[in-house]
Amino acid sequence: MYTVGYIGLGIMGKSIARNILKAGFPIVVHNRSRASVNELVSDGAAEAFSPAEVASRSDIIFTNLPDSPDVEKVVLGPDGILEGAHEGQVFVDNSTIKPAVARDLAVKLSGKGVEALDAPVSGGDIGARDATLTIMVGGPTSALEKVMPAFEAMGKTITHVGESGAGQVAKAANQIMVAAQMIAMGELLVLAQKTGVDPAKVVEAIKGGAAQCWTLDVKPQRLFSGNRQPGFKAYMQAKDLNIVLDTAREYGVPLPATAENAQLYNAMLQMGMAELDNSAIIGVIESLAGIKLKIAKQI
Amino acid sequence: MYTVGYIGLGIMGKSIARNILKAGFPIVVHNRSRASVNELVSDGAAEAFSPAEVASRSDIIFTNLPDSPDVEKVVLGPDGILEGAHEGQVFVDNSTIKPAVARDLAVKLSGKGVEALDAPVSGGDIGARDATLTIMVGGPTSALEKVMPAFEAMGKTITHVGESGAGQVAKAANQIMVAAQMIAMGELLVLAQKTGVDPAKVVEAIKGGAAQCWTLDVKPQRLFSGNRQPGFKAYMQAKDLNIVLDTAREYGVPLPATAENAQLYNAMLQMGMAELDNSAIIGVIESLAGIKLKIAKQI
Repeated sequence: MYTVGYIGLGIMGKSIARNILKAGFPIVVHNRSRASVNELVSDGAAEAFSPAEVASRSDIIFTNLPDSPDVEKVVLGPDGILEGAHEGQVFVDNSTIKPAVARDLAVKLSGKGVEALDAPVSGGDIGARDATLTIMVGGPTSALEKVMPAFEAMGKTITHVGESGAGQVAKAANQIMVAAQMIAMGELLVLAQKTGVDPAKVVEAIKGGAAQCWTLDVKPQRLFSGNRQPGFKAYMQAKDLNIVLDTAREYGVPLPATAENAQLYNAMLQMGMAELDNSAIIGVIESLAGIKLKIAKQI
Repeated sequence: MYTVGYIGLGIMGKSIARNILKAGFPIVVHNRSRASVNELVSDGAAEAFSPAEVASRSDIIFTNLPDSPDVEKVVLGPDGILEGAHEGQVFVDNSTIKPAVARDLAVKLSGKGVEALDAPVSGGDIGARDATLTIMVGGPTSALEKVMPAFEAMGKTITHVGESGAGQVAKAANQIMVAAQMIAMGELLVLAQKTGVDPAKVVEAIKGGAAQCWTLDVKPQRLFSGNRQPGFKAYMQAKDLNIVLDTAREYGVPLPATAENAQLYNAMLQMGMAELDNSAIIGVIESLAGIKLKIAKQI
């Protein structure tokens, strides 16, 4: 059984690392802030004091960080993974970053004999905790075969999308659809209420038909109960849409609807809602329409 | 068992009328063009030569017509339903029209002692044929109780959304979400292909996660096989979005994302794709990006 390294113990990373640990893998963790390191250590993880140290002590090194520059720094920077890496290792990035950066890192790691997988996830804090994540994988099959037991400890749907960067392209595609659904939900709930129709009844009426989606299955109850806490933070959704639009521009793909949706998330951040759930985008539509969604009595 | 009248035997109406007939209700049908009338008559339906005649011979009168002015004409116009209507009848409109028009017709019919339900449907030609439609109902409970056996013969999910017009508000909400999903699907498939990643693999990777929706479950296979035939025609989707935006303006609700989506459907019509499926909106994104989605080999 190989030793796993895990760098980046945020909401997602901490749950994923814990599930890998529970599956029986020896694990070495590292994180900028100490609180979650201590939690994992008390569960049985070993601690490392730099990404380089994690790399030197692991067979498979995971990262789970906010954005492209963070992953670049942890891999390529001083005391970074590349410094501690050795031939035969596999690097796996669970972050959501630009496909072009994922490919660039894969090339640089291959210079040290390290294979790389981009493996962003979807399914939120609940999916991370319950090990039901969707994992979108780009990179060589040989590396995926090695990492598969760890993936199976953290997720349910594991898809090999293609070569290096393809996992990040799938995640970008995922975020195009998620943002569209979140904003459509906000628009339709506000419209229903302002026409005098019960938004909860509208959701009940449409959620089984052609409009059916995970968003309508899961998020309206939270909004009706007045809960706009994350879940998945709005500023991360906005960041992911910027990755989508940067990638689309790079490849020459105009995305008129996603561009509009990105603007609405940008507005959400400016309006002081950056730390709320991505479904709280309804707050932007509420402001535009001059109303607030009614909070239903708890059932 | 009451006699049902059905006016408007298009793709949807013909299948619905047939299912009502199959459930054992005597049925009187009327349609502008004769071909589908003849089909229904050979199945056992009676024929009427005007909406007024249908009304005079039925206990419950259904309409299923393209747009608000069509329904207004068939109800209020010469030889219309109102002329043949009698007290105790129920009028049921399966069309997708403006909520304000639905409410206005309900008021006018109530003057003759006729109760009205707006009951637009979702689920497409397949749902109509298989009697699995989602039916969104607005209007009085007493009328819904009378009509329920006929609804159960044509649909699966029947929701009483609220008072008159509320069914049309739910359908407008449904179309906000459906249009958002269709366009997001088009954008993500084109982006995937142009970055060199297999769009089918991307769909496989994301369809089980937070992006999950009926659209991604059902439509990509059609697009990958080169099939852009309806299904649900693009000009009907565009018409429904105009209903959404008219209603939103009337009630003072800015809908920035739906407005953008409506513009893309308007472009689709101008580009000669009005008769294609609503999922063929990808054609607009293809044009913008200068590529065509690859057609996969039949599996």
